[in-house]
Amino acid sequence: MRYVPCAVIDSTLREGEQFARASFSPAQKIQIARALDAFGVEYIEVTSPCASPQSFEDCRAIVGLGLRAKILTHTRCHMDDVQRALAAGVDGINLVLGTSSFLREFSHGKSIDAVIQAATEVITFLQQFPVEVRFSCEDSMRTSIDDLLRVYRAVDALGVDRVGIADTVGAGTPRQIYDLVSRVRAEVQCGIEFHGHNDTGCAVANAFAAWEAGATHIDTTVLGIGERNGIAPLSDWVARLHATAPRLTAHYHLPGLVGLDRLVAEMIGLEIPFTGCVTSFCAFTHKAGIHTKAVINHPQTYEILAPEAFGLTREILTGHRLTGWNAVA
Amino acid sequence: MRYVPCAVIDSTLREGEQFARASFSPAQKIQIARALDAFGVEYIEVTSPCASPQSFEDCRAIVGLGLRAKILTHTRCHMDDVQRALAAGVDGINLVLGTSSFLREFSHGKSIDAVIQAATEVITFLQQFPVEVRFSCEDSMRTSIDDLLRVYRAVDALGVDRVGIADTVGAGTPRQIYDLVSRVRAEVQCGIEFHGHNDTGCAVANAFAAWEAGATHIDTTVLGIGERNGIAPLSDWVARLHATAPRLTAHYHLPGLVGLDRLVAEMIGLEIPFTGCVTSFCAFTHKAGIHTKAVINHPQTYEILAPEAFGLTREILTGHRLTGWNAVA
Ligand SMILES: O=C(O)CCC(=O)C(=O)O
Ligand SMILES: O=C(O)CCC(=O)C(=O)O
Ligand SMILES: [Cu+2]
Ligand SMILES: [Cu+2]
Repeated sequence: MRYVPCAVIDSTLREGEQFARASFSPAQKIQIARALDAFGVEYIEVTSPCASPQSFEDCRAIVGLGLRAKILTHTRCHMDDVQRALAAGVDGINLVLGTSSFLREFSHGKSIDAVIQAATEVITFLQQFPVEVRFSCEDSMRTSIDDLLRVYRAVDALGVDRVGIADTVGAGTPRQIYDLVSRVRAEVQCGIEFHGHNDTGCAVANAFAAWEAGATHIDTTVLGIGERNGIAPLSDWVARLHATAPRLTAHYHLPGLVGLDRLVAEMIGLEIPFTGCVTSFCAFTHKAGIHTKAVINHPQTYEILAPEAFGLTREILTGHRLTGWNAVA
Repeated sequence: MRYVPCAVIDSTLREGEQFARASFSPAQKIQIARALDAFGVEYIEVTSPCASPQSFEDCRAIVGLGLRAKILTHTRCHMDDVQRALAAGVDGINLVLGTSSFLREFSHGKSIDAVIQAATEVITFLQQFPVEVRFSCEDSMRTSIDDLLRVYRAVDALGVDRVGIADTVGAGTPRQIYDLVSRVRAEVQCGIEFHGHNDTGCAVANAFAAWEAGATHIDTTVLGIGERNGIAPLSDWVARLHATAPRLTAHYHLPGLVGLDRLVAEMIGLEIPFTGCVTSFCAFTHKAGIHTKAVINHPQTYEILAPEAFGLTREILTGHRLTGWNAVA
């Protein structure tokens, strides 16, 4: 089977800043950006330079690091915002505007025509500059499909690099996301970015379904931090791709994942969730007697990922009560 | 749309015991069983009474509580094991036997014919007793589909209540699980149970895909605890079903979820993962200014689940740097 590669847009420095416990200092942001770049993510998304004078400085400082990763910033679809983003020197601008009836009614109050008009003004302006441009419909999952396709077709025709599909409230299921991305894939020429929240536990699987349906870019954050319980964690995403085909992750420095997760965990003052993939303390811990016996014979019996690929080792617990299960085998 | 309901088989007292940090005392097991029953799970699965004399006692003690939930135990497909399970007085026996080439070669060494023969002996014996019987193919995802269907057809014909599909190493994707369960659904008359590990971050979504394809029973554990990084967490599963249709979770005592998660978190000495649904400290915390403003107007703008349904409240963070985002709106 041939797989189309998929770029990671890591948003720890934007979505991640929206996490309850995140409050990164300028020095910490630089440390995170360097660690993400060393791991090899293709893009780093940072908070809008319009959020505060400090966020403008932080954005410029990260641009100034000269990383391999492209630096994106996430702005509203306003001329003021994108001018400030250009002044900060970013490689690309991730525009977002709400299109669901919820957001149109209770947030910005715009009609779909007004959304397209705002997008047209800003995107047309940005065409003069050497930056990547993405336009995303916030809360895509709760936007009518007709509205959504109208907006995507319009911005695709204006020449955006990609459109963004956002499951802003984490409502989607993998089959819904697959269907939606397939519909969009059939209508636009540009790339497709997917951003999915984890409110119903499906963020990673939804990202994977989006990729299967033709998404070219996937949003992650380190440890999944973001609004509420966050989005797809980078480690989980890498685990999922790696299990599908190791060559999909061959360009990443996989042994760097655990250090990256630990770095951010320390900054937010929380443990790496034990339910996380690869980097959780127990991700490669085998306990039941029947498991430990087989794993000693042949690790693949109870492992889909090899810890060695991530610079880690497996742990085999013995001497507890469940060892006895196999003793009777 | 009409939805077929789905029963939860909570395996905190079996799969959960295989978690690195779990070592429940008899009194703790009883506390967990009572809390699961108060929440309303349909089934509670406990460690095999053959694992140790203590596990036999613990199983009997839980059976003796007279809970509404049915008590299952999880045993190998051996006559000794099921006799011990019957002696413990359980309502049902969840038989398991490895069918993947990995497990057949490196674990028990049986051919598929030998698997069917072992299943036939044990299931035929169990038909005399008033217990539910399930037969599961461990590592179903890495078993050839022909072998798998042969085994499931054979045990269905023997009259099992359900077959089990196990993604033992967490390798599956939602589309693969959907396809596999659909294949099995077309071949057997009995119920279908799905058990999926989280090694690649898809446990909840895979359980949901299994249900969409016709699975009738889903395995969960409190907080997702289990071998390695575990299986589908009960809270995430309930969140996913509730978001799909509240009537799918109407028979559960939803406000009991947070206490259940906290109880087990305390017993294992770890925090509820902040990435978890519903019960994580930040599941209903809104931070970015544009979010907080809209949520105050109308909570649904950034919430797919209402915290009130779970006896919880939303938290709105203000006074941090990102509040300013909306100040420029
Ligand atoms: O810009 C996007 O596509 C996503 C914005 C966001 O964080 C969300 O909608 O959850
Ligand atoms: O009995 C089953 O279906 C599942 C056993 C188990 O824990 C697994 O295969 O991961
Ligand atoms: Cu988001
Ligand atoms: Cu398991």
